Amino acid sequence: MAAVRECEEPRVEDGMALIRVLRAGICNTDVEIVRGYLRFRGVMGHEFVGVVEEGPDEWKGVRVVGEINFACGSCPLCQAGLRRHCPSRRVLGIQQADGVFAERVAVPVVNLHPVPDELSDEAAVFAEPVAAAFEILEQVHVEPGMQVVVLGDGKLGLLVAQVLHHAGAVVLVVGRHLQKLSLLAERGIQTLLAEEWAAEVEMADLVVEATGSAAGFARAIEAVRPRGTVVLKSTVAEPLPVDLAPLVIHEIQVVGSRCGPFPPALRALAQGTVQVDALVHERVPLARADEALQLAQQPGVLKVLLECG
Amino acid sequence: MAAVRECEEPRVEDGMALIRVLRAGICNTDVEIVRGYLRFRGVMGHEFVGVVEEGPDEWKGVRVVGEINFACGSCPLCQAGLRRHCPSRRVLGIQQADGVFAERVAVPVVNLHPVPDELSDEAAVFAEPVAAAFEILEQVHVEPGMQVVVLGDGKLGLLVAQVLHHAGAVVLVVGRHLQKLSLLAERGIQTLLAEEWAAEVEMADLVVEATGSAAGFARAIEAVRPRGTVVLKSTVAEPLPVDLAPLVIHEIQVVGSRCGPFPPALRALAQGTVQVDALVHERVPLARADEALQLAQQPGVLKVLLECG
Repeated sequence: MAAVRECEEPRVEDGMALIRVLRAGICNTDVEIVRGYLRFRGVMGHEFVGVVEEGPDEWKGVRVVGEINFACGSCPLCQAGLRRHCPSRRVLGIQQADGVFAERVAVPVVNLHPVPDELSDEAAVFAEPVAAAFEILEQVHVEPGMQVVVLGDGKLGLLVAQVLHHAGAVVLVVGRHLQKLSLLAERGIQTLLAEEWAAEVEMADLVVEATGSAAGFARAIEAVRPRGTVVLKSTVAEPLPVDLAPLVIHEIQVVGSRCGPFPPALRALAQGTVQVDALVHERVPLARADEALQLAQQPGVLKVLLECG
Repeated sequence: MAAVRECEEPRVEDGMALIRVLRAGICNTDVEIVRGYLRFRGVMGHEFVGVVEEGPDEWKGVRVVGEINFACGSCPLCQAGLRRHCPSRRVLGIQQADGVFAERVAVPVVNLHPVPDELSDEAAVFAEPVAAAFEILEQVHVEPGMQVVVLGDGKLGLLVAQVLHHAGAVVLVVGRHLQKLSLLAERGIQTLLAEEWAAEVEMADLVVEATGSAAGFARAIEAVRPRGTVVLKSTVAEPLPVDLAPLVIHEIQVVGSRCGPFPPALRALAQGTVQVDALVHERVPLARADEALQLAQQPGVLKVLLECG
């Protein structure tokens, strides 16, 4: 159950900053958490922009966004540069760390990134999901001219499409909502309604599964060419029956993909190569966060923002 | 049902050679075909060494092995160098092409490779499965010192372990048969019985799933580190329930892997870096191929060879 309630001020441990939250975004992961995903208990929310209130002098008053994985910094994975995979990490609003659907939040200073002046609060709050889109470029060598199919026209699908389009790929987005797809079409990205799409005639080099549904995986495998790559962006809680034989026969590569790098995301937002204005569906005051969470679950609704301060 | 029977001589189409089969190997895929996999009807078998009887002059009398995918050579995938993935391919003894459990077989000349003189017939017949092991090196960048776990001590697992060991990886093979594992231990490869293996403490960079069982996939996902790679070598006919969430959370890459390049396989066999002598369990005359197929299905049995000519 999600509820808005009075609670204690965040505990600001060593190395952390206290941040006054300006805007927070509702992500599908938040919706999954309301449904019981990861059995999280605490303040929800991980997409935010805010201003540092307490912390090192050089950070005070700085407008920031923040990476969501709080790593130990000393284990072998952290030492290998894989802080986002630290096995003892806490995750903002997702795992053992109170999140940003609040007036104030504590975040490790090492996780903070200053927001360029030219970037509005409403654009900056998209830094985290845009970073998740850039994660694909960190994991997969996307060559110019590569044929890419993005399955799903939800928030993440629309961001992934823009990032890959600007990386030089030829992107086709397959979705269920004409209105969402039109946001991309006007930016020169090909779109198609799912019911008009014949997966069997596709031979994409790369398919990004961002439907958030279990059936998306099978469709992605159908759409990719032999020796092609499928990127999995949806975390689907339930195990599902999967026929792995096509992976072997067609030598397909499946790459799970989660959080990504903030710096290229902030640059893309500041330069306007990734456009997010049209993705904001509604702004809701923090006190009505429960309504906002309901709204975010409606079909066809894109980003719902919470006005926190 | 598998049966030995009199049948017509192979049709030698344009561009093909007629080959007198010397030795043929029984592979797990043959066993799966007996059980109904791919609903193949025709002469079984795809691992062979033979001598060219009819074909271009320069090939006559040459001892050869042969690649099993008969490609069209002109479609976009063939033109892109992916002949093994030609969508209209026939596959020797597996799909629309009579195989090598016979006295003679027709194979496209373009698929043939001469066998070095120093290589015995019994070693040469392993060219195809050793090529399948080398396929991993073609698909995945295996760095020296990489921690590799091979799941399964069957024929393919033992070959994969040797190939990756010689590529500089630190290989641990997890299997169920002390006798099979001892073949590797004496070659300096680490081995462990499955029941002594605690997957959760492993953090392999690369896991090769070669158990031939459905449960192997889940074990492979447990054993690999975040951002690591799982290579799938088993074709399991039945869809199975798979929890895809760990792939996304740990950003694991799963690579399906099938047939591979013959030239490095022949070199490795000729140089003795891949040892196959100890893998031959039994030699059976072609006339008793049905018994040989039964034998190949017994637990603990490695390669059964057919003496065809």
